[in-house]
Amino acid sequence: MTTIAFQDLRDKLRDFSMARDWDQFHTPKNLATALAVEAAELLEHFQWLRDEESRSLQPETREAVSLEAADVLLYLIRFADKLDLDLIALAHRKIEINSARYPVALARGNAKKYTDL
Amino acid sequence: MTTIAFQDLRDKLRDFSMARDWDQFHTPKNLATALAVEAAELLEHFQWLRDEESRSLQPETREAVSLEAADVLLYLIRFADKLDLDLIALAHRKIEINSARYPVALARGNAKKYTDL
Amino acid sequence: MTTIAFQDLRDKLRDFSMARDWDQFHTPKNLATALAVEAAELLEHFQWLRDEESRSLQPETREAVSLEAADVLLYLIRFADKLDLDLIALAHRKIEINSARYPVALARGNAKKYTDL
Amino acid sequence: MTTIAFQDLRDKLRDFSMARDWDQFHTPKNLATALAVEAAELLEHFQWLRDEESRSLQPETREAVSLEAADVLLYLIRFADKLDLDLIALAHRKIEINSARYPVALARGNAKKYTDL
Repeated sequence: MTTIAFQDLRDKLRDFSMARDWDQFHTPKNLATALAVEAAELLEHFQWLRDEESRSLQPETREAVSLEAADVLLYLIRFADKLDLDLIALAHRKIEINSARYPVALARGNAKKYTDL
Repeated sequence: MTTIAFQDLRDKLRDFSMARDWDQFHTPKNLATALAVEAAELLEHFQWLRDEESRSLQPETREAVSLEAADVLLYLIRFADKLDLDLIALAHRKIEINSARYPVALARGNAKKYTDL
Repeated sequence: MTTIAFQDLRDKLRDFSMARDWDQFHTPKNLATALAVEAAELLEHFQWLRDEESRSLQPETREAVSLEAADVLLYLIRFADKLDLDLIALAHRKIEINSARYPVALARGNAKKYTDL
Repeated sequence: MTTIAFQDLRDKLRDFSMARDWDQFHTPKNLATALAVEAAELLEHFQWLRDEESRSLQPETREAVSLEAADVLLYLIRFADKLDLDLIALAHRKIEINSARYPVALARGNAKKYTDL
């Protein structure tokens, strides 16, 4: 990982897992599953909200959503650690790919997938 | 955001979206949906793999998985930006919550949910 | 399964899988994963739509959505077959549970979870 | 819907929703979201299980899984009702598409996606 902030979290998660003997459960497949489950738990808080309501969450919802977002990040870091992925570098690379896929002139103001542009 | 690495990505995503007039689509609800969809796309690569296979991915699968993981991070950062969440601080807070929920003596070697410990 | 329509689909899926020697991949865990992945693919078509747009889909979107919905049903039937679950009976039972959890007087006009009513 | 069993459930869900004035929340977009969330809740029960464990669930897990599977079916029927989709007919059509995509000779014994066969 390229950033200190990510390294700190990665190391804390390693210690956490080792102390509990959880590495046996943390296969990349299982971590990808847990990541998808956490992302769905985050989404659950929004499922019946109108778009406007989703912009100004009630305090309890905001608190719950915040901790679900943290869960997503934690499983993502753990997943990347197990596969030795550099998430920050990959994210920059993906933005470049997206810039090429979605030229401003074609993508401006519409939400079509790049395969349909 | 507390880290330079995240601020960089957040700012790039802001520019990317503004140039394409996409902020109209980026409600927290829609971003939470996109995050869950990307997490499922990541998971798709693992759905038929045995645990051992998931530890040593084929090169093309590893490349695809890497870019899906980047997508998850990018939507998570964008989501957090729209709700003004500090992901790194929240992640540290969540690890502390988990430490209390999963005491080593009870959690060691099993994968039960904290509510069942 | 209690209905002929479901039995037909279940039997077709059994034949399909046996002919391809796919039962080795169809563990309940993997089928639950595939089900979640298909549900996310269905959702992907809606992620940037406004609620009104989601009510009157464009023809190509409607066609794609229809086939994703079919995938969800097929994996659900296959999953239920592997665990010997009677989906129709369970669905009726769940409606009764929900009727008790969401009394009309409390639930009318709001979308709160039963634990918050 | 082509089957009595589905029509019964569809009608019960219509009554349930009307009595609670919930049609306002049941846009196709929101129902697709709820479907994905329920599928993830089903998956959550399997996330740390080994394949063998997932074949013979503990009684409490089996009960929880059964009701989550019912939730998936109920939201799928509700979603199909709102878009006027005939799930059973679509499922048969999708099996035919898959038969063409996955010829026995090519697909036998491997789990590759049809685009990679």
